[in-house]
Parts: sequence; C-alpha cells; structure tokens
Amino acid sequence: MATIRDVAAAASVSTASVSHFINGTKALTPATAERIQQAIDDLNFVPNRLVRTLRGGRHSTVGFVVPDMSNPFFSELASVIEDALQPFGYLVVLCDTKGDVQREHDYLRRLAEMRVAGVIGDFSGRTDVDLSALSAVGASVVLLGATAGKAISSVNVDSTEAGILAAEHLRSLGHSQVAFLSAPGGERITDARWHALLDVFGRNLGGENAVVHLKAAGRRAADHATLVDSLLSLAPRPTAVVGANDYLALTVLHSLLRRGVDVPNDMSVMGFDDIPAAALSYVALTTVRAPAEEMGRTAVEMLLRAIRREIPHPEHAELPSQLIVRDSTTAPGQVN
Amino acid sequence: MATIRDVAAAASVSTASVSHFINGTKALTPATAERIQQAIDDLNFVPNRLVRTLRGGRHSTVGFVVPDMSNPFFSELASVIEDALQPFGYLVVLCDTKGDVQREHDYLRRLAEMRVAGVIGDFSGRTDVDLSALSAVGASVVLLGATAGKAISSVNVDSTEAGILAAEHLRSLGHSQVAFLSAPGGERITDARWHALLDVFGRNLGGENAVVHLKAAGRRAADHATLVDSLLSLAPRPTAVVGANDYLALTVLHSLLRRGVDVPNDMSVMGFDDIPAAALSYVALTTVRAPAEEMGRTAVEMLLRAIRREIPHPEHAELPSQLIVRDSTTAPGQVN
Repeated sequence: MATIRDVAAAASVSTASVSHFINGTKALTPATAERIQQAIDDLNFVPNRLVRTLRGGRHSTVGFVVPDMSNPFFSELASVIEDALQPFGYLVVLCDTKGDVQREHDYLRRLAEMRVAGVIGDFSGRTDVDLSALSAVGASVVLLGATAGKAISSVNVDSTEAGILAAEHLRSLGHSQVAFLSAPGGERITDARWHALLDVFGRNLGGENAVVHLKAAGRRAADHATLVDSLLSLAPRPTAVVGANDYLALTVLHSLLRRGVDVPNDMSVMGFDDIPAAALSYVALTTVRAPAEEMGRTAVEMLLRAIRREIPHPEHAELPSQLIVRDSTTAPGQVN
Repeated sequence: MATIRDVAAAASVSTASVSHFINGTKALTPATAERIQQAIDDLNFVPNRLVRTLRGGRHSTVGFVVPDMSNPFFSELASVIEDALQPFGYLVVLCDTKGDVQREHDYLRRLAEMRVAGVIGDFSGRTDVDLSALSAVGASVVLLGATAGKAISSVNVDSTEAGILAAEHLRSLGHSQVAFLSAPGGERITDARWHALLDVFGRNLGGENAVVHLKAAGRRAADHATLVDSLLSLAPRPTAVVGANDYLALTVLHSLLRRGVDVPNDMSVMGFDDIPAAALSYVALTTVRAPAEEMGRTAVEMLLRAIRREIPHPEHAELPSQLIVRDSTTAPGQVN
C-alpha cells in the first residue's frame, strides 16, 4: 500500500506538502498541487481517515438507530438522513435493533467504542447507561419521535396527539367497535397511540371498553396478514381497524379486500405515518401523517449544530401530526 | 473522559491487566475481573476501537452500497446483511447512491479512507478505480447482482435469465403488445431485463418491435404513478406491463385499478424481485423472484471468508431466478 512518503518522493515534495494538500491546510502553487495529485493517482494512495480521527478526536460517522428497517417509514427516514449528512462528509452507520432491547444496547455501546460523531435514533427509552457512554466519548445524540427529558436533544411527533386524531376521526364517523393492530418493535410509540385510542373511546362510551388490541407475532408483512384471521373472528366484529403504522395497516387492508371484505363499507381501516404507498394503494389509506422528510432534516441540522458545539444546550423540536382522510374510512354499517 | 489508567487506578491493577480484561487476551482471577468491571462501570469507561483498528490495521465496519433504499428489495437486503454481520461484531455503513455514479464514486473512496473491512454492493460497474482503491487498503469486496470478471467475488442473479422468464410467461399467455416501465437507478440490471424482453418479443414476432420502454422521471412512488398516464395514451394500448421491479410494478398496478382498468383482464401486470408486498397486494402480483435473503446471507459468508483470508481466490455464486405466477397476469382480451 502506498504511503504519504511514497507520494512525496514521486512528486519531489516534502511529506508536509502532501499533508497540506490532502487536508487543505496551506495554499500550494498550482504546479505543486498538480504534481501531488498526479502522484496520488499513479500510486493509488488512499489517505487514512482513522489517523485524522484519532488526532482530531472525532469520527466522520453518524449512527442511525431504528426499530425496524423493513417498515418503509424507517427506510425513508434512513434515506433522508443519509442524504442530508452526505454533503458534510458523514457516513451513516445503520443499526436495526429489530425491536430488541439487548441489541439496541449492544449497538449503542459499539457506536460509542468506534467514536461516532453523533447518533440519531428512535430508542426504546431504557438506554440511559448507553446514552451516558455516548456522552462520555463526546458523541452528540438526537432522539427521534420522542423526548427523554430536557437533557437530550429531540425531534418529536406527539404520538398521543396522533392517536387522538385517529380516534376522534373514527368516533366522529360513528364507530364504537374498534380494533387496534400492532406488531413487535417501536413499543413506545405504539403504546402511546393505543392509549390515546383507549382514552377517547373509553371516555365517550361511558366507561364501556369497545376497543381491542390484537398483536402480531412477528414484524414481517406475512405476520401482519395473519392478524386478519383474529380480527374477523371477533364478536361483535369491529367496524373499524387502526394499524399501529401504515406498513401494517396496508397489509391488513389488502388482506381484507382479498377475503371479500369491502373496505371501507364493511370495515374502515386507517394507519399512522403516511408512507408513500398509503396514497397510492387501490383503496387509498386514511392516515395520521408523521412528516418523515422534515423529521430527518431537522434531526440532521440539530445534530450538526451539536457536533460543532454551536448551540451549548440541548434543542427540542415538536413537529405536528396531520389527519389525512382518504378512501379507506367511512361511517359504519353503510352496506350491511 | 475516563482513560485506561483511571480504570487501572480505581481497580488497583496494572493498565496491562485492564487491557487483557477488555481484549480477553489473558485469564484473570474472578476477583480481579470483577474489580475491573466495577471500575469500568463506575467511571463509564469506553474502550476506543479506533486504536485497536490502527494497531490491527482493520476496521470492524462493512460498507453496503445500494442504488435506491426506498425500494423495499434493498431495504430488505440491508436488513438481512446487517443481521448476518451483527453476531461477528461488524457495523454496517449504509451508502445509498440514488443511482448517481459520482455519488457512488465518493462513497467508495470514503469507505476506503475509513478502512472498512469490506464492502458489499450493487455498483454501477464504472468503478474500477474505486475498487482498486478498496483493494489497495486491504478491504474485501463482494459484488451483488452482477459479475465483474473473475477478479472480484460476486453473488449474482442472472438478470437476462430473469427477463426471459418474464417475457416467455407473457408470450405464452398470448401477449404481443408489451410495455416495460422503469425508473432511474440500477440501470445495469434494468437494462438486462429490458433487453431480454426485447430479444424474446423481437425474435418471436418476425422482427416487429411490439415492446416499448417508458421511463419515469424520478425514483419515488409518485413518479411511478405518473407513468400510467403515458401508458394509457399508447396506441395500440399494451395488453401487458412489466415493471423493472416490484416496487414500481405494484404502484402502477394500484394506479391502474384506481383508474378503472381491470387487472389482469384489461391489462396484465408483472414485476421482478418478489418483495413481501407482492404476495399481499389486493391483486397479488406475478413476478420473477430474486432471493434477497439467500443473496444477503451468501454475500456475508463470502465476505467473512475473504476478510479472514480463508479462501485465497475470489468466489462466485449464481442464484436462480424463479417465475411466480399470481393473479395479476392472464391471457389478453378476456373481457374486451
């Protein structure tokens, strides 16, 4: 492997000049710069960023921690974050915890050990020790979709508010028998959405609990589809279904259609997030939008300010949820 | 930040003992090990993997390079690869080139600069210089979904064979007017699938070119949906549509249904990849399966053997494509 000395010898300059050229730390004559570039190309010399990281104490990587990469909401977020960090020279380390707390713990430790500049993530919330390890090595942290007190920066969408928007929409249409469907992973957000539903329907039905919670065994689309069996065997049969996220809600919507259930006339279906497929589905999905693009970009801007120590204290942004009514919800009993 | 010396002082042992404890390089008495662990916890000490990387010359990261993370096929692959590497202590650096050759070049250079242990990726194929930079720093490379001669290990699915499977399926049903739809990104694979279609229909229609290629302006689902306008304005109207991948084909299928086109009776639709949503769509999608799980796991096993220098030469695996006939294709003119 070619070294900086080889490049200096080939270009007939000092190693210091090569170093200045690579790091842009001193102006060189065009002729010298060209000779050095030529030597770098000829020798296929690749500067070692690790050495620079050790000297500067900071790595040019950022960890992105998600509970489930198969959910298009998180792959879209990953794409937004990676795209926003790319011009600043940061590479993104992808950590899919698959909803496993031990795995999240391992990842956060290892991100600290590799001295990432920062971490953006949707954590389970049982990670105080890990976050202090990150803080101990000088890594900045931005929590996504949650707050964890004032000490850690966050870009939040209020999951309870989103749950209430969904519940009030169904209640205003006249539904009183509602099923909430979820799958493992992202429990913190799922639980907030479920409890909001419970609050709205519990409050408005004089204490009678007309909402049920069905949980899938796994995180895959095929697991979501099996929820439909349980759903259709409920008595009384719910007139509306709320998926914990659009990825799940769309799979359930299509399974219902394939089994001859008319959505929305026999059963209303809605979700959360507003992934691109929601608007484009055959029966377009009613949902409560979480602004992925804005969340990702805001988190990156916040993280870059923290890495550069431009803002001495943690920052918090709260982004609004928005009810988007499409074709998959209507009043109950239109046809029956 | 706590150092190894602080830990040694707090545990009343030598720094060498702490180092042996962290790296598992020498057995210590249980009492000593416990004292060191306690000191590490108390001081929130995080070992620096960069130092170990510099000493060992190898990083515990692997780059994963994809043309489009919004396509569920690639987010599933990312998940498989990350899952397979996790037990071996490797973190995955995600590089979404978004189909941009310059961006791919930048990413491959930066992966070399950060001294990744290896790279798994679907490259555009114009990256000889970058691959030799990776090779110069000792990083192993496994190409996905392609071969690039004998010199670089690869896990391939023959895109031409897959294209022929699709074309022969439609031809055997009686179709002769076929549209192929694609979006930017992954041109190498898209082109192979398109040319296979061209070969089959060109050959069998006595030289008459009955296949057309419509290209979306962007990579997003909304861009895919706009292809439907162009498709429906073609004269004669195609009786079958082939999407360059399932992500695109499913969006088009649903847009057609929403516009009152009966799939498959008015128009057959098929795709490639067999993403989970294909089987679960209201009208289940006929497709040519590329085995994402097997591709990802095979690539990781190959990469780990290369990193450990267990196999002295490049390895090549060729995985089969499989036609999966579902409900979205039938003979033309059933209804009209």
